[in-house]
Amino acid sequence: MGQPSPMNGGDGIYSYTKNSSLQRNGASVVNDAMKEALIDNLDIKKLLSGSTTFTIADLGCSVGPNTFMAMQTIIETVVEHKGSEGLLEFQVLFNDQIGNDFNTLFASLPHRRNYFAAAVPGSFYGRLFPSSSIHIAYSSYALQWLSKLPEELQVKDSPAWNAGKIHYMGASDAVVKAYTNQFDEDMGIFLGARAEELVPGGMIVVVIPSVPEGCVEHGTSIVGSFLESIFMDMVNEGVVEQEEVDSFNFPSVSPSMKDMRRVVEKNGCFEIVRMELGEAELPSNGDGEVDAERVLVLYRAASEKTFANHFGNDIVDQLFARAIQKKLKYTQNLHSFGVKTSTQLFAALKRK
Amino acid sequence: MGQPSPMNGGDGIYSYTKNSSLQRNGASVVNDAMKEALIDNLDIKKLLSGSTTFTIADLGCSVGPNTFMAMQTIIETVVEHKGSEGLLEFQVLFNDQIGNDFNTLFASLPHRRNYFAAAVPGSFYGRLFPSSSIHIAYSSYALQWLSKLPEELQVKDSPAWNAGKIHYMGASDAVVKAYTNQFDEDMGIFLGARAEELVPGGMIVVVIPSVPEGCVEHGTSIVGSFLESIFMDMVNEGVVEQEEVDSFNFPSVSPSMKDMRRVVEKNGCFEIVRMELGEAELPSNGDGEVDAERVLVLYRAASEKTFANHFGNDIVDQLFARAIQKKLKYTQNLHSFGVKTSTQLFAALKRK
Repeated sequence: MGQPSPMNGGDGIYSYTKNSSLQRNGASVVNDAMKEALIDNLDIKKLLSGSTTFTIADLGCSVGPNTFMAMQTIIETVVEHKGSEGLLEFQVLFNDQIGNDFNTLFASLPHRRNYFAAAVPGSFYGRLFPSSSIHIAYSSYALQWLSKLPEELQVKDSPAWNAGKIHYMGASDAVVKAYTNQFDEDMGIFLGARAEELVPGGMIVVVIPSVPEGCVEHGTSIVGSFLESIFMDMVNEGVVEQEEVDSFNFPSVSPSMKDMRRVVEKNGCFEIVRMELGEAELPSNGDGEVDAERVLVLYRAASEKTFANHFGNDIVDQLFARAIQKKLKYTQNLHSFGVKTSTQLFAALKRK
Repeated sequence: MGQPSPMNGGDGIYSYTKNSSLQRNGASVVNDAMKEALIDNLDIKKLLSGSTTFTIADLGCSVGPNTFMAMQTIIETVVEHKGSEGLLEFQVLFNDQIGNDFNTLFASLPHRRNYFAAAVPGSFYGRLFPSSSIHIAYSSYALQWLSKLPEELQVKDSPAWNAGKIHYMGASDAVVKAYTNQFDEDMGIFLGARAEELVPGGMIVVVIPSVPEGCVEHGTSIVGSFLESIFMDMVNEGVVEQEEVDSFNFPSVSPSMKDMRRVVEKNGCFEIVRMELGEAELPSNGDGEVDAERVLVLYRAASEKTFANHFGNDIVDQLFARAIQKKLKYTQNLHSFGVKTSTQLFAALKRK
């Protein structure tokens, strides 16, 4: 794979537009933490140094609507907090990969908005904006996507050949290490680029799927393991080749707080002014049980293209049809690990 | 109509991407004039006032490739001209209406480019960018589109009811006046918005279809009159209702130098540092004759959606099929007026 695959575009039944409530729940539980972190750490007068334009970037914005809510929250926080500063103009730069459906994003831009909107196409694992041009860079549920799969996962004789598995949970140490190294390399590039683009005192806000401290199994990995078992059924029935599964690896990580601290400290340009774990409720049905089918549809909206690039669309349709047929098994897995939520990491970093 | 219609998206046979050579020829004949105007009038050190980012906007960029060539020419001119200024970073803001096909634009962005690219959706008849954030605003073959049709053209009892016609060429004084008033109003808004967005000393470069001084008939109006005659055939055959044609008016103007001078002087924020007419060759076939069919295909790529919104897709298909069948008549019209080129106006305006 050259680049990670974008979320599903358009507004069909599996579109990200209609299936991003998990990511939205995740972002909303961090709203208060984000507001506090901004208010405690932004020196707006110093940040602006004479300019009247306050610039915010959303890195990995996808197609909305989550990004519009987040940007509005940040703008309201800055407006409330700006104190004696005069009238500010806000500019929001919506970033995502070139393959993102920016036409849909633009069509759903709020009509009454108090900011100038622009889209910036390209990978955030590289420079996107001019030097010292950004005041706040926000990224929610995007940095878990690696820039590429580690090469050793794709070499059959390598100790990191991940036979029978599609991710690093429960995999060999070599597989885990390959993922960790790629995460560290990507975050090094990410933070290096942002260090050039943010003004001194500017902030990065990150929300990313994570794991409880000292814990391996969690909401997302349980979906992954469940789909792994569905793939094995398909291999056993001859629908998919074993090697097709062996050579597929999902290009994402859920870093722990320790992982995040390591990469920020290695970069050295940012101070961690706030970092914490939070829990986003998984969608539930009327009686408080996790709605397994809904979780699978949400997961599909965010992952379908990645699977389809490797296995083709027919296999993806079958995969999720089978998963929904067997959803009770997934619910049982959640029960047996006592998981009702999805863990996420919130971090606020300040440019030194 | 709420907004003028965008150029044809995608990359099909009638797409603007594959059918914008007339606009490209038009822009390339003004390349030298543009370079000279920029070199003679840009004080780069003063413009930047300490910043290291030089920002260029293309207003009405459509989907490429013309915009990429124009932006590259401007950047090369600034780089050659910047003298003792240190390393500059360039930022290009590609603007067009929200309905423009930005996905196609992004997919065709040059891979090796020396600028940060962003898209800004919205009508240029209004604010698009933060105050004092733009150094050069460029607009080629876009400002001829009015923001809307003058209302009086759509009132059956009005003296500006344009019976049997689709544009203002050869129309009544009331029709011409309605178009002129709308052009003046739109340009007033355009220049007012740009006056806020450009830094002092910043420049606007405009290329727009125009008319030779003291002349009414020209390349574009001859196409318009020709299509008018095709519509009349369709009315006579009962394919289209007379009133459908009467109530349709093409929402564009080709201003003269006098028109342009009037609106710039009324606004008062810009100095006209260069203004001139040029001629872009119409596409020709091997023996130097105008290639009527090619002209009609180019015209279709830029106008199809406007016709289709009023008449529907079937009528547009018929209109252009009939036009191509009768292309000899169009060629004869060109001959009888001695027209082999399309006139365009180039203007360079400097923010006072």
